[in-house]
Amino acid sequence: MEKLQELRLRIDQVMNNLEIPAKPKNLYQPISYTLANSGKRMRPLLVLLGCKVFSESIENAIHPAIGLELFHNFTLLHDDIMDDAPLRRGEPTVHRKWNTNIAILSGDAMMIQAYQHVLETKQDVLVTVLRIFNTTALEVCDGQQLDMDFEEMERVSINDYLNMIRLKTAVLLAACLKVGATVGGANEEQAQLLYDFGLNTGIAFQLQDDILDVYGESNKVGKQKGGDIISNKKTFLLLKAMELAEGNDASELSRLLKSNEAEKVDAVIRIYDKLNIRELAEQRMWQFYNSGIESLEKVNGNQEWISTLKGFTHALMHREH
Amino acid sequence: MEKLQELRLRIDQVMNNLEIPAKPKNLYQPISYTLANSGKRMRPLLVLLGCKVFSESIENAIHPAIGLELFHNFTLLHDDIMDDAPLRRGEPTVHRKWNTNIAILSGDAMMIQAYQHVLETKQDVLVTVLRIFNTTALEVCDGQQLDMDFEEMERVSINDYLNMIRLKTAVLLAACLKVGATVGGANEEQAQLLYDFGLNTGIAFQLQDDILDVYGESNKVGKQKGGDIISNKKTFLLLKAMELAEGNDASELSRLLKSNEAEKVDAVIRIYDKLNIRELAEQRMWQFYNSGIESLEKVNGNQEWISTLKGFTHALMHREH
Repeated sequence: MEKLQELRLRIDQVMNNLEIPAKPKNLYQPISYTLANSGKRMRPLLVLLGCKVFSESIENAIHPAIGLELFHNFTLLHDDIMDDAPLRRGEPTVHRKWNTNIAILSGDAMMIQAYQHVLETKQDVLVTVLRIFNTTALEVCDGQQLDMDFEEMERVSINDYLNMIRLKTAVLLAACLKVGATVGGANEEQAQLLYDFGLNTGIAFQLQDDILDVYGESNKVGKQKGGDIISNKKTFLLLKAMELAEGNDASELSRLLKSNEAEKVDAVIRIYDKLNIRELAEQRMWQFYNSGIESLEKVNGNQEWISTLKGFTHALMHREH
Repeated sequence: MEKLQELRLRIDQVMNNLEIPAKPKNLYQPISYTLANSGKRMRPLLVLLGCKVFSESIENAIHPAIGLELFHNFTLLHDDIMDDAPLRRGEPTVHRKWNTNIAILSGDAMMIQAYQHVLETKQDVLVTVLRIFNTTALEVCDGQQLDMDFEEMERVSINDYLNMIRLKTAVLLAACLKVGATVGGANEEQAQLLYDFGLNTGIAFQLQDDILDVYGESNKVGKQKGGDIISNKKTFLLLKAMELAEGNDASELSRLLKSNEAEKVDAVIRIYDKLNIRELAEQRMWQFYNSGIESLEKVNGNQEWISTLKGFTHALMHREH
């Protein structure tokens, strides 16, 4: 993982030296605050990794990498308003620490700054990169809207759910790899293979999140076990259980969805276990993962970096929280 | 004004045929709804006018013109959330007709669509146009933040106020002309002259808005006379009155700012009249207007279209509401 560490250091160095205007401070302080709470920087890392597969130098990929990280942070900022989330990565969210208006506007400004960085992409691939960026950005909005719509709907199909997580989460990871590959000199076909790898493994990551929320070692991250169950979130697990449950299980599940009893999490898990939901979810997760790896193996680029990318993804699939 | 009519028809035709995705409908219906309530389409008109000054054909300016109109509508949508405005152009605002989350997200999507159209600008000026667009977009955010900040501040200087309306309103009008000129083939210096014209007349328009809010024939548009006075909005007029008022006038003005009495509007206007505020505001307005016209007269382009632009601006300066 030494190769990864080199890229991570470069990202941290650039992100820590971003020039954010000082005034108006209510507009830009929330942006600095958001970016200081760094998270895993997975998106810029994927841009640089995508680039490394096709090019020795990553210098041309730095600005688009920052652009995609800023875009991701903009979506988190606005999503947190929409969900009224109190915390993000353990710190108060912007709309709670300042207020909703400031969170809306500083999010807007962060999105424009994302475009400023993407615009610094080298000329010969600029239009291609901007097209990927625009298409993906709009898809992420589609995904967020579907996620909100699903909260209000009685019935959501598994396919609709998979489509939603594809849009909300996976397309951005895929776009990062494709942008990196494009900047690194990959042709359309090769860049698309990395995109498909990112898309499928991205869906697999989200399914894994769903599984870990119920079966993960929640105490390691201080998360509440079964948070999705408590909030009736229509995850793959719940939707699969609703599809398969019959007779008493079906009526018990319906009843639990309307209740707030203390036993709710354990009671729902008992139904999941009876219906073998964990295994079914893991099967689906590995299908997506393997399909992603298949695309990666077709890529004709630097084998060492392809291995690094595979190793990185594999490690992510074996996290426990 | 026949020349203007030709451009207006072209804009309406394009705007009425914009392809907005059908789904997710909670994301895109608010966009169609916002765009159907068209307003004056002043920004795309300025793009086409700026182009016409330097080029016979306006075809290359159509996409950036739509982009700037979409951007403007995005700002209105988000501003309406921040102000909790119930109505926009006589129709319920998006956050009232749907909800705040939908208004945030459909605004985000509209901004991305704005970039999609700007990206269709012809290649040789694309980067220049995108730079103008990014810079301006961020300045508009700065202006909106300053406007919100000023609501909470005791003292705002006239210069701070003029800077705020420059950012919130004028830079976008100026950028429209500059983008049009750039697409039409103007060099940097010529494009900047149109920008300066738009910037100064844009500030003049806003000062005129401030004046009309108090002295306009409000019944013609169904607006409440003195809405700015009722809400203690720190306009040029109020700030100038606060600067000039002494003795009893000063204490009466302070008292009125804290009161909600029925006589408030008339009482504040009496102080304005005593201090000659209307004339002072009009002087400042015409200074900006004339400074704008000076820049326009230096432009070396199609004289007929320069006259059309001058006539259009002049007509706007003589509106009564």
